[in-house]
Amino acid sequence: MPIVQVEMLKGRTLEQKRALAQKVTEAIVETANCPKEAVKIIIREMDFENFSQAGVLKCDE
Amino acid sequence: MPIVQVEMLKGRTLEQKRALAQKVTEAIVETANCPKEAVKIIIREMDFENFSQAGVLKCDE
Amino acid sequence: MPIVQVEMLKGRTLEQKRALAQKVTEAIVETANCPKEAVKIIIREMDFENFSQAGVLKCDE
Amino acid sequence: MPIVQVEMLKGRTLEQKRALAQKVTEAIVETANCPKEAVKIIIREMDFENFSQAGVLKCDE
Amino acid sequence: MPIVQVEMLKGRTLEQKRALAQKVTEAIVETANCPKEAVKIIIREMDFENFSQAGVLKCDE
Amino acid sequence: MPIVQVEMLKGRTLEQKRALAQKVTEAIVETANCPKEAVKIIIREMDFENFSQAGVLKCDE
Repeated sequence: MPIVQVEMLKGRTLEQKRALAQKVTEAIVETANCPKEAVKIIIREMDFENFSQAGVLKCDE
Repeated sequence: MPIVQVEMLKGRTLEQKRALAQKVTEAIVETANCPKEAVKIIIREMDFENFSQAGVLKCDE
Repeated sequence: MPIVQVEMLKGRTLEQKRALAQKVTEAIVETANCPKEAVKIIIREMDFENFSQAGVLKCDE
Repeated sequence: MPIVQVEMLKGRTLEQKRALAQKVTEAIVETANCPKEAVKIIIREMDFENFSQAGVLKCDE
Repeated sequence: MPIVQVEMLKGRTLEQKRALAQKVTEAIVETANCPKEAVKIIIREMDFENFSQAGVLKCDE
Repeated sequence: MPIVQVEMLKGRTLEQKRALAQKVTEAIVETANCPKEAVKIIIREMDFENFSQAGVLKCDE
């Protein structure tokens, strides 16, 4: 039943997301001891003007 | 003051969202015992390449 | 596949949560057109010192 | 290490987001006692048909 | 209507949370151009065994 | 910069969380192409009365 949310900047390819979904699911199954079918992953992509670190937007870095 | 977030795949019509907002609000008011005005709902829609179950992206199913 | 998160102040009884889970699930099924089994609800309860409105913590109101 | 998520309706300019990132970061640093570099802010913008209050979508108000 | 979630490690005092709620609200009002009453803040506190950076739990650092 | 949130039922040991943090971080680094230091993981544990599937609380299953 683990629900995983991955928040990251835009720009990953479909191929990368596909690999991410597979590998993160495996990591959860292996360590949290749950069936593969129970793992759900939500990927959220952020625009560069919607993330800041140390008070500076990513698009301004 | 309940804040409700509904995460679902893209594809619902405005009419469905309208009904969802109304019915979920009623369900919260009735069971959590709070005024209607206090219930806020955020709907988040996911692309089919941004959700995976059992390690497989929705767009690959 | 809708995943619902309900954020609310502490204090609801188990009976209220039970009703909330049932009614909100029904509302989602009816309006988002998905099977009952697909609806997951996470309830998050907040302490009164962890929520503020208009800049004032709930515990100070 | 504070991670801040700001959920708001669409329509703010880049200039407003820039100011928000800076001022909210300062507010966190000052009150939570942490280094500026540790503060991350995610801005999430909602469409008017994806937010409801009192059971009514923003786009219908 | 901005809803702000602040995720941070446990250990802040009530006084710090009070100041945080006030200052962050002011920062949002000033930059996002909205009434004070509309700003809601949820503070979420994490245990040191529930946060990791670079693959290492905070409690193991 | 990926921020990962893992929502799961209570009951995992510290050892399991430690392994989860490590393995999930590795999975993200490998597939999203980012430095290890950039990956942050938040683990959220739910009580059995705060999660429902198909309208039934976990504690009632």
